Amino acid sequence: MRELARAAREAGNALQQRSTEDRRAALERLAQALLDRSDEILASNALDLAAADDLAPALRARLSLSQAKLDTLADGIRSIAASDEPLGREVARRQLATGLELTQVTSPIGVLLVIFESRPDVLPQVAALAVKSGNGLLLKGGSEARHSNRCLHAVVTEALELGPVVGLVETRGEIAELLALDDVLDLVIPRGGNALVRHIQENTRIPVLGHADGVCHVYVDASADLEMAIRIVLDAKTDHPSACNAMETLLVHCDVDPEPLVQALTRAGVTVDRAPADWHLEYGALACAVRVVDSLEDAVDHIHAHGSGHTESIVTDDEEAAVRFLSSVDSACVFHNASTRFADGYRFGLGAEVGISTSRIHARGPVGVEGLLTTRWLLRGHGDTVGPFTRGEREYTWVEA
Amino acid sequence: MRELARAAREAGNALQQRSTEDRRAALERLAQALLDRSDEILASNALDLAAADDLAPALRARLSLSQAKLDTLADGIRSIAASDEPLGREVARRQLATGLELTQVTSPIGVLLVIFESRPDVLPQVAALAVKSGNGLLLKGGSEARHSNRCLHAVVTEALELGPVVGLVETRGEIAELLALDDVLDLVIPRGGNALVRHIQENTRIPVLGHADGVCHVYVDASADLEMAIRIVLDAKTDHPSACNAMETLLVHCDVDPEPLVQALTRAGVTVDRAPADWHLEYGALACAVRVVDSLEDAVDHIHAHGSGHTESIVTDDEEAAVRFLSSVDSACVFHNASTRFADGYRFGLGAEVGISTSRIHARGPVGVEGLLTTRWLLRGHGDTVGPFTRGEREYTWVEA
Repeated sequence: MRELARAAREAGNALQQRSTEDRRAALERLAQALLDRSDEILASNALDLAAADDLAPALRARLSLSQAKLDTLADGIRSIAASDEPLGREVARRQLATGLELTQVTSPIGVLLVIFESRPDVLPQVAALAVKSGNGLLLKGGSEARHSNRCLHAVVTEALELGPVVGLVETRGEIAELLALDDVLDLVIPRGGNALVRHIQENTRIPVLGHADGVCHVYVDASADLEMAIRIVLDAKTDHPSACNAMETLLVHCDVDPEPLVQALTRAGVTVDRAPADWHLEYGALACAVRVVDSLEDAVDHIHAHGSGHTESIVTDDEEAAVRFLSSVDSACVFHNASTRFADGYRFGLGAEVGISTSRIHARGPVGVEGLLTTRWLLRGHGDTVGPFTRGEREYTWVEA
Repeated sequence: MRELARAAREAGNALQQRSTEDRRAALERLAQALLDRSDEILASNALDLAAADDLAPALRARLSLSQAKLDTLADGIRSIAASDEPLGREVARRQLATGLELTQVTSPIGVLLVIFESRPDVLPQVAALAVKSGNGLLLKGGSEARHSNRCLHAVVTEALELGPVVGLVETRGEIAELLALDDVLDLVIPRGGNALVRHIQENTRIPVLGHADGVCHVYVDASADLEMAIRIVLDAKTDHPSACNAMETLLVHCDVDPEPLVQALTRAGVTVDRAPADWHLEYGALACAVRVVDSLEDAVDHIHAHGSGHTESIVTDDEEAAVRFLSSVDSACVFHNASTRFADGYRFGLGAEVGISTSRIHARGPVGVEGLLTTRWLLRGHGDTVGPFTRGEREYTWVEA
């Protein structure tokens, strides 16, 4: 496993030396290969589906590939190919002293380990993001998708023509080994349910990008437009109940009658829980908790005590209340008069989404290619040494440019 | 300990609600209190010095406070007070659709745990950085500085008038407890030697900002100006041999005679090791390793194999070689014709330095107040829901503003 990780790092190092045009062309080849070799890919996928008779319908739908899914995937990879070069971008530039120029430039993180459940379409998508961002990549897919993943991995590797930039691992034992390699792997991205994310967070020292829970709140303030509140609450809960950005708890100010909100939810098939045993619960289904609070401050305290720091929204016509909520809620996403469902990389306009992070370190909230980058500080001088500055013979200018 | 951490988080939450002017005034009061109460502070420090008879001279110098040190400290805190407001700064702004405005704004990380060895002046300095960045703070100082730290902690808390925003812990047992609280502490910053940093990295799941090793390289290329190379190498090794950004290994291209470089080092009192047992060694003294390499690529390979990702410098008059080195060396700082000793927050113009990070996640290289910040995404709408977008009734505009 260490050799695999080292190979991915070396391939990543070689990758970031490639020109923008080289990497763009590799991604175009990958998009085309997914279309050209779709028969082969769908045949592999059929083997997985045949072996997965007892899979729940939702999981089966995720495992299943189709020509339409491959078309969408190819489109997505073409748009990653066409997007701006993320590497080598100047984040800061400062003249430290005459002739001594400092720049801070974006760089790849190094080697990513992406662990995903039975959704084989994640494989080429993440491979494309890694190539775009110049990172080496190790992938571990669900065992239900073994045939699909092997086929897609071959298609990706052959189409990219970039060497072992994408490594595929298949067993849980291999993952356990990889999670111990914090000296050669730089970031783990688990894409899957709470249990997967939590397991990984608890079993590695490598930084983990993502979130275990999405316990999102909508707070209906005293000055809310009730019709708007119903619209937002329904969208936040029912648009996609199992999504991480769906509402799990509705907080209602005591001056607002909660019944119209509860009735609207009930009519939409939502089970409303007025006294849950645990306020930190991700229902992930057509169900939610409701609590009446005495004030905006109590709503914020509830969110800080029971939330997951993902996404919260206030519905209010009171601008001052909105400002207080937006400035005091310590979550990745804080909204005013908008559904929590907008917390999403695509909707935020970030292009391809890597995931949503509730970490306070590195990327936070919906994460695009930016979250796969770090920076390096480059300094160009003419034989400069610190001695003359220490002795007062030269002075720092620190001119921003 | 959990209660202490929670109190720091709550104090931090309250802190970030304070106006820029409130926090600036609190820092001004702190600077003034360090001067007004210097007798008391120096008396506490004398108790620590009296109890530390057997301390090595270098450690004793670090432990020792003086009126001059307090003056410098007060100046530093005044300059933190006067610096731009780091919180609530817009990092990005995008209109997602008509009337739906997204901004990404800087925010405090949450609660910081700063662990420092016997340098009591770190306490007020870090407290000032925490107040500026709106973070709650727990501090653990060396036991040798117990009296000084208690006195400074009282001065800080009384002068700031901001509640329990700075907590002080004193024993190793308390630190072990705190390092387990990854749900209430957000970032650990160890300020001290390798052993301290490594111990902390190996004993917590909380992200650690900093670096264990500083194995920095200077590579003298075939096209180097030899006089410039000698000047840079001497500065990089001898200006402050125990600093993390001092040169540990000199790499010399095989077309360059290494003898003038070795002789200059030797004359400056540096022990030159031509065949070290371990190329990943931080001498931290007037000693270094020297290796002749066949090419720039071999130098880069040596750095990637044996370095610590801190700071490397190439000396060359060949612009093309410089570009290759700057683009291919994967370290936090990569320099051309400049001493590695410039890798420093003050010299980089970052204002107060939190430390130097060799992590690829979050802040990298010299870290200023920026490294103590995260961002939140704020979205302001007018009752917007995702349903109409999904049904094709509305379209995303994604207009950057």
